[in-house]
Amino acid sequence: MDRGFLFGDGVYEVIPVYAGKVFRLNEHLARLQNSLDSIQISNPYSTEKWQSILTQLLEQAPESDQSIYLQITRGADTARKHRFSELTPTVFIELNPLVPKTKSELETGYHAIIQPDFRWERCDIKATSLLANIMYAQQAKQHQVEEVILHRDQSITEGATSNVFVIRNNTLFTHPTGKHILSGITRDLVIESACHCALNIQESIITIDEVFNADEVWISSSTREVMPITMIDSKQINNGKIGRHWSNVYDHYQALKNA
Amino acid sequence: MDRGFLFGDGVYEVIPVYAGKVFRLNEHLARLQNSLDSIQISNPYSTEKWQSILTQLLEQAPESDQSIYLQITRGADTARKHRFSELTPTVFIELNPLVPKTKSELETGYHAIIQPDFRWERCDIKATSLLANIMYAQQAKQHQVEEVILHRDQSITEGATSNVFVIRNNTLFTHPTGKHILSGITRDLVIESACHCALNIQESIITIDEVFNADEVWISSSTREVMPITMIDSKQINNGKIGRHWSNVYDHYQALKNA
Repeated sequence: MDRGFLFGDGVYEVIPVYAGKVFRLNEHLARLQNSLDSIQISNPYSTEKWQSILTQLLEQAPESDQSIYLQITRGADTARKHRFSELTPTVFIELNPLVPKTKSELETGYHAIIQPDFRWERCDIKATSLLANIMYAQQAKQHQVEEVILHRDQSITEGATSNVFVIRNNTLFTHPTGKHILSGITRDLVIESACHCALNIQESIITIDEVFNADEVWISSSTREVMPITMIDSKQINNGKIGRHWSNVYDHYQALKNA
Repeated sequence: MDRGFLFGDGVYEVIPVYAGKVFRLNEHLARLQNSLDSIQISNPYSTEKWQSILTQLLEQAPESDQSIYLQITRGADTARKHRFSELTPTVFIELNPLVPKTKSELETGYHAIIQPDFRWERCDIKATSLLANIMYAQQAKQHQVEEVILHRDQSITEGATSNVFVIRNNTLFTHPTGKHILSGITRDLVIESACHCALNIQESIITIDEVFNADEVWISSSTREVMPITMIDSKQINNGKIGRHWSNVYDHYQALKNA
């Protein structure tokens, strides 16, 4: 009778661990808090308690690089009913090995398709009601591409499991934060890296046309980091060539990981 | 690791049982099949097998009126990943007592509020990724109303857990079937009853203004049947009076239940 099972009534985080150290934990816990607040689940633990729980788990699984999957649902009620009262939240944490792709693997480039964004309008909540994302992921699998890039009307929002960046004339464009995208921790790190690499940053609407005419297109997520997309809907981006900005930003991102 | 818990990756049905007999079982099983097809889950059982499973369960719980909650998820995988392969679906069935409100209870009228529809654009799938609906249900609880009526732009789609009907000048208006509403079994029964009661039927867009200026507003769902809404956002509908069409349609609906 867990409401996670009955209603997808929960939120989650995926947090990378590099060299045994949890990466940007505070940012992930802050986003978790936002997600919980948005759906009125009380955070079961303090920041200190989360830190100690994760430390304890990592001691039992001392691999160097891993990813922490952390899910909180509203808990189990006595009967299935939409309206809720305060319950004891269910906490589920799983550690998985994390093997990010090497730079030379990434340099082969990845393919994507573009599809209309039919998800709900609260994509800022990292919720477990993920059926739309599952449907897109399966489309990606069937089309043998890495990602499905989504658009509302003519503007690109994000990928089904990533944020999207378009580079043109030394400027990085990405969709502004708001209810139509998840404000990713990795998204912020990519922006930080792009700044460092002397790119201008424009958080503004990107049209479908602009994506196809970009110098570079990237996607980012906490486990995939930043990946170059070289073909969308069978059309090559920048003649299928990996861009120099991606290479610079990738290097800086690696430096941040190891900082 | 059930994908119902991790992703809201499942579908469900709520089927009423009246006088020990499952009501409109074939229609519910047909809708279940549509939902399963939409998300590529293979139906684990044939119609005959479903009938025998439900018959067996009902023998163990021989109350006269009940509701069957039936949920199918994609099943449990070995690891959490969005992309799926064929798994053994998880089937969860629960019986609950069903006590529909009496006509005199319903005649007191019910209140609703109107809110923008921020759900996904595949509301035709009866999916367990229900967080948006949970958020609306909680709003209804906080506003002490029966239902949240939803609109996209200026047109009414449906209720968060019901279909919506507007009656004006002897015509019943309801949103056409499509991706923005769940084509309810009860919706069809209300239309059938309205036809029987000499109402004209218009499956077409209803604006917010039209709702406020309606002769009657009803909501329907399989457990609530057809309920009169007499106040929306603190504004009375038809001076707060229950309409005669509702009364006729209610009576015919009861006759269908006992047919």
